[in-house]
Amino acid sequence: METDDQDGVVLVSPSNFSMVEDGIYRSGFPQLENFGFLKTLNLRSIIYLCPEPYPEENLKFLEANNIKLFQFGIKGKTDPPTPMPKDTVLDALKVLVDVRNHPILIHCKRGKHRTGCLVGCLRKVQSWCLSSVLEEYQKNAGLKWRQMDLKFIETFDIVRLRQCLFSIMYRYHGYGFKRKRLMYEEEDVQKPKPQAAKV
Amino acid sequence: METDDQDGVVLVSPSNFSMVEDGIYRSGFPQLENFGFLKTLNLRSIIYLCPEPYPEENLKFLEANNIKLFQFGIKGKTDPPTPMPKDTVLDALKVLVDVRNHPILIHCKRGKHRTGCLVGCLRKVQSWCLSSVLEEYQKNAGLKWRQMDLKFIETFDIVRLRQCLFSIMYRYHGYGFKRKRLMYEEEDVQKPKPQAAKV
Repeated sequence: METDDQDGVVLVSPSNFSMVEDGIYRSGFPQLENFGFLKTLNLRSIIYLCPEPYPEENLKFLEANNIKLFQFGIKGKTDPPTPMPKDTVLDALKVLVDVRNHPILIHCKRGKHRTGCLVGCLRKVQSWCLSSVLEEYQKNAGLKWRQMDLKFIETFDIVRLRQCLFSIMYRYHGYGFKRKRLMYEEEDVQKPKPQAAKV
Repeated sequence: METDDQDGVVLVSPSNFSMVEDGIYRSGFPQLENFGFLKTLNLRSIIYLCPEPYPEENLKFLEANNIKLFQFGIKGKTDPPTPMPKDTVLDALKVLVDVRNHPILIHCKRGKHRTGCLVGCLRKVQSWCLSSVLEEYQKNAGLKWRQMDLKFIETFDIVRLRQCLFSIMYRYHGYGFKRKRLMYEEEDVQKPKPQAAKV
């Protein structure tokens, strides 16, 4: 545990960490030194976008803190380059927008391409205009941004997701997020069963 | 108002927009085209960090949406370069951490240097380690990052602020933000008077 000179513990964020949304965070791969920071997020779930097995020490952290792992194995840089798999991203997006999984952290290896594409698709669901979506992608990818990812985000079809989510999950309009979540948790509405999420 | 092909309105975020924290946002200068987006944030206040008068159309937007403006006139790029004024940043920080002003948007002109320094100081209050703070600053400043700003953030003394805030305002430990705010709003605790905030 790292400390400073004045009052003890300091928090080491994972590389490339940002808050996406109320209850949604993104980053590069969390290391042991980041676990103290992650604890402060009170995570309920993690979306992990790499095909490699999750490291043992990270699994232990998840178990100790009752955090659910959703793994979607998407390959990193390939030769020749291949675009992101649409169906896998759609599946990850369904997990992401389900407030029952929040607070949630999305991460891949560096938090740039795979994470950036998923967040980009979320922004489209949120009705962000394309230039805002791409600016956010590029800010997080830095000099490593990829034209192929921008094209993926631009052409990703969110209509099916919207239809599927319309009555059963969090459908985002602007940032009225907390109110919707509270409604979901507190009101006596008919709660959907997971299989209802199928398109 | 911009629209897309499918279902009407699309939201145009201000340049360099990010969510800092539950109830805290940052960006470059909001333009007319961003007002629809800003409405979705349900802002209660704006911290504006430039000395120039606020534009008339922005003032009208604030008035129509009952948003309070806190202006702290900090000069942009100067020749020769001058460091950020510590006392002004401290005053802005006091406004920023007061949850009665949330949701709040911080902006200057491009959301890079003045905004970046203020957010950097907030992160120190939140016990982030210095390398995490500087990574976030640099991500938002891009190629325009300034060594002088990094030094300002590193040497900014948050002890006085912490002491001042200890019993009267939001003192951040990790992300347990919402709970504290709800307590403040909902529980029958003795609410501090503004003058108690003096150091």
